[in-house]
Amino acid sequence: MEKEIMSSVAFIGLGVMGAPMARNLLNAGFDVVGHNRSPEKARAFADAGGRTARTVAEAVREATVVATMLPDTPDVLGVMHGPGGVFACAESGALIIDFSTIRPAAAAELAAEASALDFRMIDAPVSGGESGATEATLSIMVGGAEEDFEIARPLLEALGKTIVRVGNPGAGQLVKAANQLIVGGTIELVAEAIVLLEAHGVEPVAALDAIGGGLAGSAVLSRKGPGMISRQFTPGFRLSLHRKDMGIVTDSAREAGVVIPLGALVSQLIIASVAGGDGDLDHSALLRLVEQLSGRAD
Amino acid sequence: MEKEIMSSVAFIGLGVMGAPMARNLLNAGFDVVGHNRSPEKARAFADAGGRTARTVAEAVREATVVATMLPDTPDVLGVMHGPGGVFACAESGALIIDFSTIRPAAAAELAAEASALDFRMIDAPVSGGESGATEATLSIMVGGAEEDFEIARPLLEALGKTIVRVGNPGAGQLVKAANQLIVGGTIELVAEAIVLLEAHGVEPVAALDAIGGGLAGSAVLSRKGPGMISRQFTPGFRLSLHRKDMGIVTDSAREAGVVIPLGALVSQLIIASVAGGDGDLDHSALLRLVEQLSGRAD
Amino acid sequence: MEKEIMSSVAFIGLGVMGAPMARNLLNAGFDVVGHNRSPEKARAFADAGGRTARTVAEAVREATVVATMLPDTPDVLGVMHGPGGVFACAESGALIIDFSTIRPAAAAELAAEASALDFRMIDAPVSGGESGATEATLSIMVGGAEEDFEIARPLLEALGKTIVRVGNPGAGQLVKAANQLIVGGTIELVAEAIVLLEAHGVEPVAALDAIGGGLAGSAVLSRKGPGMISRQFTPGFRLSLHRKDMGIVTDSAREAGVVIPLGALVSQLIIASVAGGDGDLDHSALLRLVEQLSGRAD
Amino acid sequence: MEKEIMSSVAFIGLGVMGAPMARNLLNAGFDVVGHNRSPEKARAFADAGGRTARTVAEAVREATVVATMLPDTPDVLGVMHGPGGVFACAESGALIIDFSTIRPAAAAELAAEASALDFRMIDAPVSGGESGATEATLSIMVGGAEEDFEIARPLLEALGKTIVRVGNPGAGQLVKAANQLIVGGTIELVAEAIVLLEAHGVEPVAALDAIGGGLAGSAVLSRKGPGMISRQFTPGFRLSLHRKDMGIVTDSAREAGVVIPLGALVSQLIIASVAGGDGDLDHSALLRLVEQLSGRAD
Repeated sequence: MEKEIMSSVAFIGLGVMGAPMARNLLNAGFDVVGHNRSPEKARAFADAGGRTARTVAEAVREATVVATMLPDTPDVLGVMHGPGGVFACAESGALIIDFSTIRPAAAAELAAEASALDFRMIDAPVSGGESGATEATLSIMVGGAEEDFEIARPLLEALGKTIVRVGNPGAGQLVKAANQLIVGGTIELVAEAIVLLEAHGVEPVAALDAIGGGLAGSAVLSRKGPGMISRQFTPGFRLSLHRKDMGIVTDSAREAGVVIPLGALVSQLIIASVAGGDGDLDHSALLRLVEQLSGRAD
Repeated sequence: MEKEIMSSVAFIGLGVMGAPMARNLLNAGFDVVGHNRSPEKARAFADAGGRTARTVAEAVREATVVATMLPDTPDVLGVMHGPGGVFACAESGALIIDFSTIRPAAAAELAAEASALDFRMIDAPVSGGESGATEATLSIMVGGAEEDFEIARPLLEALGKTIVRVGNPGAGQLVKAANQLIVGGTIELVAEAIVLLEAHGVEPVAALDAIGGGLAGSAVLSRKGPGMISRQFTPGFRLSLHRKDMGIVTDSAREAGVVIPLGALVSQLIIASVAGGDGDLDHSALLRLVEQLSGRAD
Repeated sequence: MEKEIMSSVAFIGLGVMGAPMARNLLNAGFDVVGHNRSPEKARAFADAGGRTARTVAEAVREATVVATMLPDTPDVLGVMHGPGGVFACAESGALIIDFSTIRPAAAAELAAEASALDFRMIDAPVSGGESGATEATLSIMVGGAEEDFEIARPLLEALGKTIVRVGNPGAGQLVKAANQLIVGGTIELVAEAIVLLEAHGVEPVAALDAIGGGLAGSAVLSRKGPGMISRQFTPGFRLSLHRKDMGIVTDSAREAGVVIPLGALVSQLIIASVAGGDGDLDHSALLRLVEQLSGRAD
Repeated sequence: MEKEIMSSVAFIGLGVMGAPMARNLLNAGFDVVGHNRSPEKARAFADAGGRTARTVAEAVREATVVATMLPDTPDVLGVMHGPGGVFACAESGALIIDFSTIRPAAAAELAAEASALDFRMIDAPVSGGESGATEATLSIMVGGAEEDFEIARPLLEALGKTIVRVGNPGAGQLVKAANQLIVGGTIELVAEAIVLLEAHGVEPVAALDAIGGGLAGSAVLSRKGPGMISRQFTPGFRLSLHRKDMGIVTDSAREAGVVIPLGALVSQLIIASVAGGDGDLDHSALLRLVEQLSGRAD
């Protein structure tokens, strides 16, 4: 039965992440209809062999799965609601998978609405960036009913390598928020450490080697550290997107009355980095702010 | 030549870290004389087959290597200086290896004094905790002359698995400071993430699984995360020691005019944890402060 | 003309602040109809000689001025909107004065809606607390058209002593947010100073005397300092309300891309104080958190 | 008796603060011998009618009071100690008044040394800046024995208007530290508020008027606010000196185990301002950092 359900996928949002994900579904044998608001990106998908639709309504008609990968909460709300939206136009019983990173509360509300309209809906935000999307090695954090997760699994396995159901609708978004809190904070810590070492004349390459094998070791240190030391900040994941994500983190903490002093401060520093013009650089460019604050920028 | 130089080691400071390190040297074939201010710890070393000395002066006489592993800067200064101290009593030409975590500037000054007195001296702070000391898997960050490092290497290899010379005297301490900054901060980030997840009813075990394979992954997450979730805070590395180390971090940053907003805040949080009575718990017990601040402590 | 416009006032929200404000209008000769969701508070107003209405619709019918003093943004939105709300039921041309502290963007949107419906609307948040409300010495920060401000002035003058138009709709709320940022932060600074002095055995009464006349002097120091030293935290202004206000502050900063590191941290500390059970104490009880963090609570 | 004790004053340190203070003593009828390490400043004092001495030893010989006003702890230690220093050369029984802002622990140690040498010594740091020094309106926070304070009082009254004994030796310095914590933090809060208002298009002059009369009112707001709004940052009190003072604040807190999250963050921000090149501007120039972080600098 799952096979059949999977046969037709509408993929809405063919941006930096969505485009390679949709192509990976195509390559895995799914029948994918792509849609993107700006038609150039849809055209690129067509060039890659995909079918495209000019509207959301047209895309979701006859689809058994509707996948969305959009920048922010309002975008997802906009695509779901309204007369030409997913909720109005999709087939009864369709499975909706939102890969976007949005507010957990919004994800939970959308899933409840979907359920009342006889859809299945899961939130499935991802981490791993553009390279993870291209190489189908994303981590996918799923919030939703166990049954819906099982139905989605074959499709998710075509996109990522770590696929974990973490709870009910919205839980995927919360775990993604926790992920972004840790990632943003760890980048800032490594940045502070590098600038501290350099200011004292200690060569950071050997230093990070020395500490990377111990308790200070992290994916940020090993994957981002070398680029930070050589000041290569090609994204990867843009600071402007991390800024948005930290808004979700701090709002989620406030709603639950959780005190996250480091998270709140990291959020301020990322806002400052974007305000200073680094929004289109990789998030590891937080190092530039530490340098600037320390009077060590060029 | 190194062989001969290595033959006799005075090991001063037989505490939680020093005791297993001295035993590992013994097991590796070094002739070790241990000394500890409180004699019970010296007795334990004698029971393990080591020779012991009642005073620093007695221990360092005829030693070709003097190793120290002491709690704080004043302890190291106290052992080096004065009429019965290492500088007054050790053999000319001896190699002094300070494994303690102390202020980088003090380490550099001691090395200069040592050099003027015809000693060789390197700073060699370690990370890896009690288990790393016991299993001889410490990371060792060495500051000192290349030549002195080479002389020390066989001894260091009996104690650790990652052994890196990171620069001139004092550089080892700076790298250790950078290490403690990253470790303390990462623990706090993981703590904030766990409490955030739990407050929203998301099961943290699955959540940390989901994010551990991506950019949020770290040694803190994998090694300390499970204990944090189950509230097991047996040290490991005590918060009271991390408090001292953060003082070194913030002082080193201030001296160099480096701005470390996260480091400064982590330092405050660790001070608070110790003030709240958790100084003898593992540093992962920072989670308890986040819980308390969020009104979620028992 | 203003006289006539002023003759009939509907006052919605007769809580800690609203009740004495409505009474002051009554005493100043205005014809006031009060309404409160929970009827006991309306009854108290009736006992004080005011007329009361059982519904918003009934209260605003025939009123030339509608005043609202409600806890939070959703409350104000709820009273304005809907079939029985102010916008549906008030007289065309009525002046709406919202004294509540709400999100600046919501205030601006409400004023635009009101204008489209042929109402006049100004935001007029106050500071000065319950005593300022009772003694008619509030500071009132008005956002709205110059003309609407002039119409409102006689009424405002019956409630406060510092009455300033600070800009267009929403500007009053922004100035209130700036006020709460400064007040919350200054309380925390004075708290940190007091605990620092006491921890060193310095008597804080003489100390605050010594510094109060200089650049460290503030209304917080002189009005709240003595109570903080003697641990008297009867509100005044509750921490739980300040918590809500700091949410407005941090959201307003984020929307405008303004970095407020101190504001963000104060917000976290206030959340912690409320989470710790001090929400119903005066905001000067932030001192209790500093004590607790420093291991100096009883 | 006090009269006679007061008759001869050695004043060491004739800088921005010391010069007008020494002149005020002269004008009040004290017999003042001034000394400054760089002779130009001594010459200016001579031109103003004062006697000068080329060395500390020469200045303190026959003085019944020795006053010092020096930049930092090491300067004061240097002037007190050594063969040509105050402790070696002053008359037995002399009263030493240190007006400098130094580490409280150093002040307490110096007073103990002085006492053992048969001197009286008090710490008497001041606030009020260059204008306060010139106009003899300083606030003076005195740490020392009651009796010594009474002997010093006539001299102190020639220099300031608020003169308070706050405790034993070192207490004056602690109160000064608390003062600098509050002042630095309040400046930052007002800066964040101004930038927040401007970013939302609200005119800050009217806004600060509206809030200055309430609980947000402070000497910082009224004295520094207008200059901050018009970006006039002529010192006043330099950021580089406030940076030093914040080091004393954070060290004093750490020694006592007091957690000062706002103080620690303000310290980082002041370090950043100085690192960014604003060290010679007035401390109200912290506003420039907030602007820069928010992408609003020119």
